[in-house]
Amino acid sequence: MTSILDCTLRDGGYYTDWDFEKGIVDDYLDTMSQLPMIEYIEIGYRSPAQDKYLGQYFYLPIDTVKYIREKIDHSKKLSIMINTKDCTSIEQLEYLLSDCIGYIDLVRFAVSPANFDHALNLANKTKDMGFEVALNLMYVSQINNGDIKSYIDQIVTGAPRTDYIYLVDSFGACYPEEVKKKVRIALEASNIPIGYHGHDNIQLAFANSIASEEAGAVIIDSTITGMGRGAGNLSTELFCSYISNKKDLVIDYSRLANIVERFTEIKNEYGWGTSLPYMISGLEKLPQGEIMRLLSMKRYNTNSIINLLNEKEEKILPDDEDTFKGIETLDFSNTVLIGGGKEVAHNIEGLLSFAKKTNTAFIHASLKNLDYFMKKDVTNIVCLPGDELNKLGKYYNKDIIYLISDKQPNKVDDNIIKMPNVFILTDEYLPNLNEFTFDPPLLMALKAAFKIQGSSIFLAGFDGYDQETEANKYLREENQQIIDVYNKNFEHKLISLTPTKYNIKVKSIYSLIVHGVING
Amino acid sequence: MTSILDCTLRDGGYYTDWDFEKGIVDDYLDTMSQLPMIEYIEIGYRSPAQDKYLGQYFYLPIDTVKYIREKIDHSKKLSIMINTKDCTSIEQLEYLLSDCIGYIDLVRFAVSPANFDHALNLANKTKDMGFEVALNLMYVSQINNGDIKSYIDQIVTGAPRTDYIYLVDSFGACYPEEVKKKVRIALEASNIPIGYHGHDNIQLAFANSIASEEAGAVIIDSTITGMGRGAGNLSTELFCSYISNKKDLVIDYSRLANIVERFTEIKNEYGWGTSLPYMISGLEKLPQGEIMRLLSMKRYNTNSIINLLNEKEEKILPDDEDTFKGIETLDFSNTVLIGGGKEVAHNIEGLLSFAKKTNTAFIHASLKNLDYFMKKDVTNIVCLPGDELNKLGKYYNKDIIYLISDKQPNKVDDNIIKMPNVFILTDEYLPNLNEFTFDPPLLMALKAAFKIQGSSIFLAGFDGYDQETEANKYLREENQQIIDVYNKNFEHKLISLTPTKYNIKVKSIYSLIVHGVING
Repeated sequence: MTSILDCTLRDGGYYTDWDFEKGIVDDYLDTMSQLPMIEYIEIGYRSPAQDKYLGQYFYLPIDTVKYIREKIDHSKKLSIMINTKDCTSIEQLEYLLSDCIGYIDLVRFAVSPANFDHALNLANKTKDMGFEVALNLMYVSQINNGDIKSYIDQIVTGAPRTDYIYLVDSFGACYPEEVKKKVRIALEASNIPIGYHGHDNIQLAFANSIASEEAGAVIIDSTITGMGRGAGNLSTELFCSYISNKKDLVIDYSRLANIVERFTEIKNEYGWGTSLPYMISGLEKLPQGEIMRLLSMKRYNTNSIINLLNEKEEKILPDDEDTFKGIETLDFSNTVLIGGGKEVAHNIEGLLSFAKKTNTAFIHASLKNLDYFMKKDVTNIVCLPGDELNKLGKYYNKDIIYLISDKQPNKVDDNIIKMPNVFILTDEYLPNLNEFTFDPPLLMALKAAFKIQGSSIFLAGFDGYDQETEANKYLREENQQIIDVYNKNFEHKLISLTPTKYNIKVKSIYSLIVHGVING
Repeated sequence: MTSILDCTLRDGGYYTDWDFEKGIVDDYLDTMSQLPMIEYIEIGYRSPAQDKYLGQYFYLPIDTVKYIREKIDHSKKLSIMINTKDCTSIEQLEYLLSDCIGYIDLVRFAVSPANFDHALNLANKTKDMGFEVALNLMYVSQINNGDIKSYIDQIVTGAPRTDYIYLVDSFGACYPEEVKKKVRIALEASNIPIGYHGHDNIQLAFANSIASEEAGAVIIDSTITGMGRGAGNLSTELFCSYISNKKDLVIDYSRLANIVERFTEIKNEYGWGTSLPYMISGLEKLPQGEIMRLLSMKRYNTNSIINLLNEKEEKILPDDEDTFKGIETLDFSNTVLIGGGKEVAHNIEGLLSFAKKTNTAFIHASLKNLDYFMKKDVTNIVCLPGDELNKLGKYYNKDIIYLISDKQPNKVDDNIIKMPNVFILTDEYLPNLNEFTFDPPLLMALKAAFKIQGSSIFLAGFDGYDQETEANKYLREENQQIIDVYNKNFEHKLISLTPTKYNIKVKSIYSLIVHGVING
């Protein structure tokens, strides 16, 4: 019989930063322990320290592990996952696993083709420590059948004690026939049992799972309500009901319905499941992590994201290369990047007075505080992500300098780009900070500031957030990442002129006015 | 190329009583007319008059049809559906279709095995009138392959001009291999093009649709956001994106995303899509209409419904048959069935006075008004659906007579059933009213009243509803249905003693007190 590895806490954690209330975890464990088709419960990641907040089920303190083991006794086996790319050495692996001996049965490694050899070493060490081991080969939709065989051959040679090889459809992009074929190839190449982990972007998680089963996979991943990264997973309630129906296995539907109801409440808050952008990411075989980030930020509308996904070659530069003009024609001694925070209003007098004294331009990453700077005899440069410039219409102001990015989802009208006060930012303006699909507003402002005057860049109104919500979490992380990478790469560090919760050097605007930029 | 028939207005109408705002319909039509893979837009049902409220897209006034035809011009073909069981004669068909000539291209008939021959006659007449015709063979999960061939053979013989034969997975219960097989059988048996209409109970609508396409189906039904009866359909946005990706057909994703967003707002209100009960109904091959009704009524919790679905043989009668006791031991001249409405409180003095004068028992279909009747020296009989009797605990009252039904989702404890004041209602107590999966409370009360005294049954507190909501819509329809069927089948009609919005004869309680039951 095919059995299930339920990884609700591990894969679902992507939505809650791996925080789950104890009550719901207890109910979940009780329900899982009574479902006959569940063989493993995967309770989270075990991870080295990361530079951001991640909860209990991302790090799994040993007391949590012991509590869960005691609670479910030995009714089920317990599994944890380790991201191969985060676990950089054998010593780190020993550190992560040694206190789990006797409590955890199975250790699974998420393996990408890039870190495959390293994963084999980790698998061998994990076996030496007495655990069962699974190698979860990610991105199988991108790996041709010959390479699948080659990876399996390498596992047979390099880590022959591996207990399970999982084929993971990371992009939710596989079709049933393709899954069958790949599972069969894997089974022909080794005697190691095969598992399958699907995603539901194009609503084929269940169809692909039963296809993998037909082809001989013996263990399949699922999560309650399909809770999981991006479009989510095969739902445990469907697969349990399916096995129950097929094998005439009695299950307690009342308990199952109860836990489904509890996770549905969380689903109503976070909203996993597929949607048009996820469908397209699956059909076009694009990574859903990026989609998830873009959707959560709510900066771009669904259409913009679809446009990006669908128009593989983005082109916003004007057709006529002669009309291209660079921002290096602008000449200022300092730049102050203006965010959307309230501290701008509190310090407006100081900011305006500083600008007038020191040939400083204001570069607005947000439009929120622009009004404070209008008609004040200062230079205002405004960053417009997306196609806002197209929509400006009567709000177009010849006294403002507009910036657009060549990395954005929407094409801007050629005639607008040719206007004398419109400039296009490109990656060349700021090396080392080009990993974003679209340029975030702070990065756009920073690109302009760096090109204009790389040694004196100030920030104002990047206050940070009092309360963390799903939407502002990504914005905060993104801004901090931009600040950190900039400061790491360039000699002159960024300085905030207003109070901020970001990790950044702060100086008082009044100190600069009195003592000058260098000595302020 | 496989083409799409989008039936959002027709199949989605089950959730909105076929009411859609004009603005959203206009947007929908504009979007559909620009998607190259859409061949037909099915704009609703054309139906003979029904005894309940059903909206514009259930009846399709000819002005609506003309408006839509003008709006989409001839960019797409238009389809309507007729329920074969509702269209009882050729004359009725002519009446329904004659004004559609020139505006509608395709007429589809929903056909069950029970009315198959009639459907062939309707199909022939429809062809005579100049329309294209599709026969939509429902419940294919329940029809074995031999019978599929036999139905197709009969179409080839009896209605050879049929333009499409659709295989409809009404229960959302088919698997991809099964769909492939059935489509192939249909194609081998005739040259008539085959279509497929899936439901998403077990999340196989997409997998089954592409399986049908692989087997040779040329037209597939879908709806925006999968809006459709019960667990819903294949979503148009997924299937369009799939075809776009596969055939490199450019589509306007922005428009598609916009209409998806608008229907998602309606989805958030009505909540179609699958859930554990729908999944089980699909896996167990049970009709989802009944599930949808039970869920909407909110009378039974999800667990109760699952229990019913899963325990195929319901057994609530006591193990020891000797302890079974019939309600015929009770002896009253009249019965008054008490509902949950406010008119009970307004008329309480009259009701109590009537009961004391005339040897009348009160049978409470609802517990809402019970308090008004306690300690008043009258006999109170209380109907308890579900397993409320198990939970009564300290509220158990030896002065009350409790009734439970043998058609209910939960087993009641044997020891409780043996109590002298607990009676079990069975179908024998009231013939002709046994089509309900579970006995509704009014039906329970009516069963008891009929057995006690079939000639003098009164109602009080069945007020009806001021505002129609999704939840009370089913309750209202159910109560009216019970009243109608009872009155049709039995000589002594039901009489309401309090004002009511139901269609039922009303007499004043005070008239009965003064003039007696016969002359009152």
